[in-house]
Amino acid sequence: MSDSAVQESGQTCERNLWIGIDLGGTKMFAAVCDADFEILGRKRKSTKGHQGAEAGVDRVIQTIQQAIEDADVSLDRVAGIGFAAPGPLDLIDGIILETPNLGWRDVPICKLLKKEFGCPVTLLNDVDAGVYGECQFGVAKDAASVVGLFPGTGIGGGFVRNGDILSGSRYSCFEVGHIRVHPDGPLCGCGRRGCLEAVASRLAIASACAKAAYRGQAPKLKEIAGTDLSDIRSGALKQAIKEGDSVVEQIVRDAARQLGTAAGSIVNLLHPDIILLGGGLVEALPELYVKEVQNAANDQIMPSFKKSFRVCASELGDFAAIKGAAAWAKKKQDEQPA
Amino acid sequence: MSDSAVQESGQTCERNLWIGIDLGGTKMFAAVCDADFEILGRKRKSTKGHQGAEAGVDRVIQTIQQAIEDADVSLDRVAGIGFAAPGPLDLIDGIILETPNLGWRDVPICKLLKKEFGCPVTLLNDVDAGVYGECQFGVAKDAASVVGLFPGTGIGGGFVRNGDILSGSRYSCFEVGHIRVHPDGPLCGCGRRGCLEAVASRLAIASACAKAAYRGQAPKLKEIAGTDLSDIRSGALKQAIKEGDSVVEQIVRDAARQLGTAAGSIVNLLHPDIILLGGGLVEALPELYVKEVQNAANDQIMPSFKKSFRVCASELGDFAAIKGAAAWAKKKQDEQPA
Repeated sequence: MSDSAVQESGQTCERNLWIGIDLGGTKMFAAVCDADFEILGRKRKSTKGHQGAEAGVDRVIQTIQQAIEDADVSLDRVAGIGFAAPGPLDLIDGIILETPNLGWRDVPICKLLKKEFGCPVTLLNDVDAGVYGECQFGVAKDAASVVGLFPGTGIGGGFVRNGDILSGSRYSCFEVGHIRVHPDGPLCGCGRRGCLEAVASRLAIASACAKAAYRGQAPKLKEIAGTDLSDIRSGALKQAIKEGDSVVEQIVRDAARQLGTAAGSIVNLLHPDIILLGGGLVEALPELYVKEVQNAANDQIMPSFKKSFRVCASELGDFAAIKGAAAWAKKKQDEQPA
Repeated sequence: MSDSAVQESGQTCERNLWIGIDLGGTKMFAAVCDADFEILGRKRKSTKGHQGAEAGVDRVIQTIQQAIEDADVSLDRVAGIGFAAPGPLDLIDGIILETPNLGWRDVPICKLLKKEFGCPVTLLNDVDAGVYGECQFGVAKDAASVVGLFPGTGIGGGFVRNGDILSGSRYSCFEVGHIRVHPDGPLCGCGRRGCLEAVASRLAIASACAKAAYRGQAPKLKEIAGTDLSDIRSGALKQAIKEGDSVVEQIVRDAARQLGTAAGSIVNLLHPDIILLGGGLVEALPELYVKEVQNAANDQIMPSFKKSFRVCASELGDFAAIKGAAAWAKKKQDEQPA
């Protein structure tokens, strides 16, 4: 149904390619996939969110165009685009509502891209896309129910159950960074206090580590990245731990434990088969994260639920979200009445 | 499909009645429903959990038998039984796993009742049953997605989405009382610290109010119920507030706010259309609860999600769970392949 045939200069060409694009705080990444979701061409570009939404959408369009060029296919073979963006999103009207890390508000991305590329565009949350990708093609292939927790600048979440992404009637959901874990906790980017991402995101970790570096408690980190939060990224944390900064390791472990306690609360609520961890921090330190989250979650869950779920790290890296977005676009088109 | 005809002494009688039973910490309540889930007969009995599981199951059997007698129908017209119990539950094998408030463990209730009554028995969580009942017959009839929060001795939760109860692959879920809301909070009945029900259940409220009564800060409550937690029930709290115990009102409002903050976290996660409040405490003080929970939830949710959900109180009282359990038993039987 989705692979409609179109007539072009006397030839029939099949619309059976799918584009997935993942809009992140620092970079955007697009890929053209064939009907089996093998990647034919791709393009990465920095997001430059500070330049505003209009310039950002232009960069999105260029990124998609260049991925199509890289795949060496014609646009009229593209059946649809799946667009993964940080939430909250209006899924019915295809609008990016709030992106604290980009500063964009109320961007009608689906309408804009449909006008440019002439094919249906499906919006979904970026972590949902990553979880859906791992469920379709990666580490979570056999699981019925998967909760994704992706600590980054904030903490993104996603929930895929029986092949479907959980969402509200209109809005994307699973804003796991904004569950409250501490009534008097530190101020969060959302303006409230004690949200999970205020205590366990990479930004929270970087902030604590910068303080330690400044004090002289993390000499390796100071050497590698200094005390500017913008430079204290996942790779620098990994290297500092490797070179013996035990304070940095303790700070990361504490944050991973807080994430694990929240994971335990979520297991008590939703009982997924898998807690899937992803994002740059987890990719840099997968063993530390999987172990600390599993242990802390076990400490929080009901005794009956023990051993009923496992914690694992994403294995497709940043391909999970683009392949997931492309596959989701196809699924949504397939579901539409003929 | 579910209404199979059976042959009995030359006559055909239709198996089209459904029994719902709700097992609570203090009482059990069973009803026989017709095909439209109108109640034909019912029976309430105290649970007497302390007498142990074996005696308890005998009381369950008597309660069902007496509800059938009250309905004045023959057993062979009963198509199925829906059994609502506090979780966690093993839904595949039909086992009640842990009931801290009854002290029962690993009770294979479905097998026991099937042997007794000769019809299929479906197990479900009690709050799920209440939410499902309100979705089918009550205040949540038009909602696609409903989260139930029922503060009682503990705090039960349920989640119904698109006509389906959310559960794990094997176990019931939505143990909302055991999400952690305070890292250093008071000890919970589950042995951990800072769980929602350790700070916001009726037991937590009663404990704080007993202290106030003992200190002389709640003179009306002391007159009405004394300082024994077993006597500080929802009705006593309501009356003390009505008669002017402002400390009691403040304690209940604080607990309702904590429940509301958790509700806000859950809206950020799951984005239901309705947060449904139920149980004796909410039935006694519906306006206070709806208002405090709505306000505290609004303080915690993402700005984009505001006005996208409403908080309301259950309207079917303890009929919600028995009708919900009966209707769920029918749904599960209808879904089975012929």
